[in-house]
Amino acid sequence: MKCFIRYEKYCDFPIENLPYGVFSTKDDPTHRIGVAIGDQILDLRQISHLFVGPELKNNQDVFKQKTLNKFMGLTKKAWKEARDTIQNLLSVDNQTLQTPDMKKKAFVSQYEATMHLPAEIGDYTDFFSSIHHATNTGIMFRGKENPLLPNWKYLPVAYHGRASSVVVSGTPIRRPNGQTLPVEGAPPVFGTCKLMDFELEMAFFVGGPSNELGKPIPIEKTDQHIFGFVLMNDWSARDIQKWEYVPLGPFTAKNLGTTISPWVVTTFALEPFKVDNYSQNPEPFPYLKHDDKFNFDIGLQVDITPKGLNVSTTVCRSNYKYLYWTAKQQLAHHTITGCNVRPGDLMASGTISGETSDSFGSLLELSWRGTKPISLLDGSQRKFLQDGDTVTIKGMCEGDGYNIGFGECVGSLLPAIDM
Amino acid sequence: MKCFIRYEKYCDFPIENLPYGVFSTKDDPTHRIGVAIGDQILDLRQISHLFVGPELKNNQDVFKQKTLNKFMGLTKKAWKEARDTIQNLLSVDNQTLQTPDMKKKAFVSQYEATMHLPAEIGDYTDFFSSIHHATNTGIMFRGKENPLLPNWKYLPVAYHGRASSVVVSGTPIRRPNGQTLPVEGAPPVFGTCKLMDFELEMAFFVGGPSNELGKPIPIEKTDQHIFGFVLMNDWSARDIQKWEYVPLGPFTAKNLGTTISPWVVTTFALEPFKVDNYSQNPEPFPYLKHDDKFNFDIGLQVDITPKGLNVSTTVCRSNYKYLYWTAKQQLAHHTITGCNVRPGDLMASGTISGETSDSFGSLLELSWRGTKPISLLDGSQRKFLQDGDTVTIKGMCEGDGYNIGFGECVGSLLPAIDM
Ligand SMILES: [Ca+2]
Ligand SMILES: [Ca+2]
Ligand SMILES: [Mg+2]
Ligand SMILES: [Mg+2]
Ligand code: NI
Repeated sequence: MKCFIRYEKYCDFPIENLPYGVFSTKDDPTHRIGVAIGDQILDLRQISHLFVGPELKNNQDVFKQKTLNKFMGLTKKAWKEARDTIQNLLSVDNQTLQTPDMKKKAFVSQYEATMHLPAEIGDYTDFFSSIHHATNTGIMFRGKENPLLPNWKYLPVAYHGRASSVVVSGTPIRRPNGQTLPVEGAPPVFGTCKLMDFELEMAFFVGGPSNELGKPIPIEKTDQHIFGFVLMNDWSARDIQKWEYVPLGPFTAKNLGTTISPWVVTTFALEPFKVDNYSQNPEPFPYLKHDDKFNFDIGLQVDITPKGLNVSTTVCRSNYKYLYWTAKQQLAHHTITGCNVRPGDLMASGTISGETSDSFGSLLELSWRGTKPISLLDGSQRKFLQDGDTVTIKGMCEGDGYNIGFGECVGSLLPAIDM
Repeated sequence: MKCFIRYEKYCDFPIENLPYGVFSTKDDPTHRIGVAIGDQILDLRQISHLFVGPELKNNQDVFKQKTLNKFMGLTKKAWKEARDTIQNLLSVDNQTLQTPDMKKKAFVSQYEATMHLPAEIGDYTDFFSSIHHATNTGIMFRGKENPLLPNWKYLPVAYHGRASSVVVSGTPIRRPNGQTLPVEGAPPVFGTCKLMDFELEMAFFVGGPSNELGKPIPIEKTDQHIFGFVLMNDWSARDIQKWEYVPLGPFTAKNLGTTISPWVVTTFALEPFKVDNYSQNPEPFPYLKHDDKFNFDIGLQVDITPKGLNVSTTVCRSNYKYLYWTAKQQLAHHTITGCNVRPGDLMASGTISGETSDSFGSLLELSWRGTKPISLLDGSQRKFLQDGDTVTIKGMCEGDGYNIGFGECVGSLLPAIDM
C-alpha cells in the first residue's frame, strides 16, 4: 500500500493506521470528522459523497456529524468498508484526491487543527484488568499474603466513572482540594491533595447498534462492538481516594479529569499486532471464555516534564499486552446482567503495569507508595506529581516496515485553587 | 390560586405543583415537554410563545425540545419565571388558554399520553445518604459495633452509576444472571440472581449552567443547580453485588436498570414542605456547611403487587426527611475536586430508610437479609422479589388544603433469560 501523501516511514499515522478523530480549525470552528494520515488530516466531511459501497452509500451523513457516535453506531462491516474506501482514496494509484482542488479542500495540516473529544461519551467505565497493578496495590494496602481479592480472577472488576470529566489531550488538569485522613484514627482534614498521580491506561470506544437493556452481548459478538482504542491518563488523587473509597469505590478522587488521546485507532489497524491472550487460571466462566486472540502488542510509555523545562523523563515503559482480561471479556462482563451499551461509550483498561518495576503504570507503584522516589533527568525527584508537571503518554505498535502510533495523551497539572 | 382545569382536591398535580415531563401521544409520537395539571398535560410546545418575561422571551425554544435539558440549563430565575407564567396561564382569571381552540390544542389527557425520560442523563450518581440505611447494612455486613464506616459522617458517600440504564416508570426490568458466591471460601457460581431487591430512593436533576471542570460549586450556590426531584427505584441484585463490589463498588448488580418517575417536581413546589435538616455531628467541613433548611417532608411508600393479582401490599412507609445529607451537600461534595456537572445529570439520594422497621427502604433491610420474611396481603411471603412482582413507589407532600404528588415510579420484574 503506497500513499500519495508523503510521511516519515516510522510516523504515527501511516496508511496502515487511519485513526478517526474530531477536529476544527481557526478558519472553520465547526467540529468535524477527520482521519490522520502522516501529519495531515483527511476531512471526511468534504469527501462523504465518495463512500459509495453497499454499507455506506445510504449512510454518508455519518461523516458530516460533529462526533463519531453515529459512525461508531454502524456495523463492523460498515467500519471495514470505510477503511477500505479511505485506503483506496489515499493510494498513489487513485487520482480522486490528488487534484490540486481536492488536495486543498480535503486536507488540513495537523499543526493547524485543534482536536476535540472524538465522541459524546454516554457512559465511561474504568476496569482494573492488569494483574500486576492489582497485585501491587493489593500488597501495598493489604499485605503480601493475599494481594488479589477473591473475585479478581473470576471477573474483570470495574466501576462506573464520570463521563462529563473525560477531556481531550492537552486540557490542563487542576490539582484538587478534598478530604483526606493523614493520621489513621484521627479526624480527617480538608485541604489540597498531596498525592496526585497519573494512571497509564488505554480505553476502547463502544460501537455497533446498542444492545437492548436486559440483553447481554454474548462474548462471540463483542468484537462487533469494539470500535477502536485511545490512550488514557486516569488522573488520581491518591490521598482523597484512600479516605473516600470504602465501601462504594473511587468517586471525587477520579472525577477531577480523565484525559484521552484524540485519535481512535481501529481494531483493523491493530490486527497485525495481536498476541496471545494472558493465560488465565482458573478458567473463566463460559460467558467470559473466548479462544481467539484479542490481546495486542502495544508499547506504552509515560514521560514527565517539569514546568519550564524541555527535559522530559520516561518514567514507565509498559505494554497493553500485560492485561489479564481482554476487551472482549470486559464488554461481555459489563453487559452480563443486562446493561445496555451505546456507541461512544468509553471503557478503560485500568492502570497497565508490567511485571518489572520500570513498567509500573502509576507513581503510586513506581515510587512504591512514596517510599522510593524516582529521579528525573533534571535532577529533581518525584514521589507523586508536582504542580506544573506535564504527563505525556505515548503508544506504539512496531510493524513490519511501519508503525501504528496513537499520537499523544498529554496533560499538565495546575496548582489547586485557594479555598 | 384557582385553576380553570378541574381536578380532585387532593390529586397529585394541583396548580401548586406543576411538574415537568416529556410525553408523546399515539397521534403525535414526537417527544415534547408538558406540565402535569390534574389529570391533564399542558403541552408547552403549543404555548412557548406565551413565555414573554425577561428571562424567557429569548429562550422560548427550550419548550420546543425533546427533553428538558435545555430548560434545565437556564437559571433558577428563568425556572421561576416559567412557573409564574404557567400558574398565571392556568388561573381562572386568565382567559388565554380557556378558548375552545386553545383547550383542544394545548391540553392532552394523561391517560392518552406515553411518558418518557424527562432528560438525557449525561451522568447518574447514587449517594448513600440515609443514616438508617447505612447503619442497617453496616450491622448486617460488619456487625453491631461500628456499623458506620469512618468516612460516612464526614462526607456524603456516593458512586457513579450507569446513566444508560436509567429508564422511565413502567419499563419492565429483567432479573439478571451473574456471578455469586453462595459458599464463602468456595469458588463462585454463575446463574440467576436469587436476591433481587428494590431500593426506595429519590433523585434530583441538576440544572443551571455547567460549572467548568476544576471549579467546585460552592455550597451557597448549590440551590441554583438543583432543578427538581423524582422518585427512583434502584433495582439491586444483592447476591451479585456482594461478590463483585470489593474494592471498586457496585457494578453489574446495579446497571441492569434503574427506574425513575416521569414528572420532575420542582424545588419551588417543595418550598412549603421544608423541614429542619438532619442534625449532624460531627459538624461538617465548611465546604459542606449550610444553615438554611434544605430538607423536605415527603412521605414515601413502596407497594408490591404479585403477578396476576390486584392486591398490592404496602411494604414500606418512609420519608425523604430521614436523609442525613442534604441535596446541597451532595452537590457541593460531588464537585469539590472539580467535577463538572451538566443540566440533566441525575443525583440519587441512596436508599431512604427511617428508624423503624416498617420504614426500611429495601427488602434486604425489611426482611433483615432474608431472616424475617414479610407477609403480603395475598398470603404469600417475600424475602426478596419474585418474578412477576410489580414494585410501585409513591411520594406525597401533604399541604394545607392540597397535596404535592410525585406520580408513580413503577416496574415489574421479568424472569431471567436462559443462559
Ligand atoms: Ca483507573
Ligand atoms: Ca442505591
Ligand atoms: Mg479520572
Ligand atoms: Mg440501578
Ligand atoms: Ni454518562
